[in-house]
Amino acid sequence: MNIAILGAGNVGSALARLWAGQGHTVTFGLKPGSNPRNPMPAGVSAAAIPDAVAAAAVVTLCVPWPAAEAAVRSAGPLAGKVLIDATNPLKDDLSGLELGTTTSAAEQVAAWAGRTRVVKAFNTIGAMLYGNADIAGMRADGFYCGDDADAKREVATLITDAGLDPIDVGPLRMARALEPMALLWIDLAVRQKRPLPFGFKLLRG
Amino acid sequence: MNIAILGAGNVGSALARLWAGQGHTVTFGLKPGSNPRNPMPAGVSAAAIPDAVAAAAVVTLCVPWPAAEAAVRSAGPLAGKVLIDATNPLKDDLSGLELGTTTSAAEQVAAWAGRTRVVKAFNTIGAMLYGNADIAGMRADGFYCGDDADAKREVATLITDAGLDPIDVGPLRMARALEPMALLWIDLAVRQKRPLPFGFKLLRG
Repeated sequence: MNIAILGAGNVGSALARLWAGQGHTVTFGLKPGSNPRNPMPAGVSAAAIPDAVAAAAVVTLCVPWPAAEAAVRSAGPLAGKVLIDATNPLKDDLSGLELGTTTSAAEQVAAWAGRTRVVKAFNTIGAMLYGNADIAGMRADGFYCGDDADAKREVATLITDAGLDPIDVGPLRMARALEPMALLWIDLAVRQKRPLPFGFKLLRG
Repeated sequence: MNIAILGAGNVGSALARLWAGQGHTVTFGLKPGSNPRNPMPAGVSAAAIPDAVAAAAVVTLCVPWPAAEAAVRSAGPLAGKVLIDATNPLKDDLSGLELGTTTSAAEQVAAWAGRTRVVKAFNTIGAMLYGNADIAGMRADGFYCGDDADAKREVATLITDAGLDPIDVGPLRMARALEPMALLWIDLAVRQKRPLPFGFKLLRG
């Protein structure tokens, strides 16, 4: 395939190297006067953004989020092409997302509950798989998060006792990720009718 | 442990059965006049919500989201207890979340780009793991979503060529889950300093 990559940082450079190695034609789209941040992989070229896009069937957007709108608007005609969006709308300090995600049920529950220690758990896999979550030779994870270490230790035991592999994913605000993950599980199961069993795992070495 | 469960639906019933089987003392907290929706598991009792909560060290909230606030406010004193929040703030038609999540970068990019076919991909695992994502005997997933089947087929090939296991998670609006998933990966790597490699997988049978 003929692929244009907008954004020559870590994501764009890694994709260019791998895709060129598989025989694809890869061109970085550069703003006037700019150069790739990393060394150009073998077999990869660069051109002005509109020229790189015009020649490509697939355009990959992997600039930092604050540069995304300008990159899209400078691309020229995109009709008929595939645009891969690899961006993440991260805040500068990585504390959250700039758009789309602002709070979580867990944080709301904590506000209602007052002085207690809230741990988010048991929300990312269907209840029919509790105790029955060994899939493809691995055990699905019971993701949990919270702000109190002792409380999380107790909940980890209860997750194990419910037949899931407990994994601590950090402070309570990470429920902002676990609740959308649950939405994804539910959408796959209910709307997309993906056959059970399936469940999320954080593979770790 | 002495555990109160608020919500006797599928989640609460499954947890009660498994936890009682592990020797925990489990009591459903019931609203006045209500009964568990499913048969009571062996070794599990029921009491009025404030009584069940008063006796418990761990309170598990697994009511439907519209009932969550009333359940928390009816629980009585929670100080010193652990409150497990297993809710998901789902819309009635399961099309999204009632709070916390409203849009995604992918949908914003599609709005900027106009007539093109946007596919979200390559955002849920660090670029250093592209081509290097075999972890614990499995290959990490390259999650992708979009609204055009042909475009997604092309992107699936490019995900394979980048050394990830492509998995179609549905329409473009599921980027509302993939972007928080990316935030979680980044938070684990950067803020929590979890050692690499790690990556998400949807285990499937």
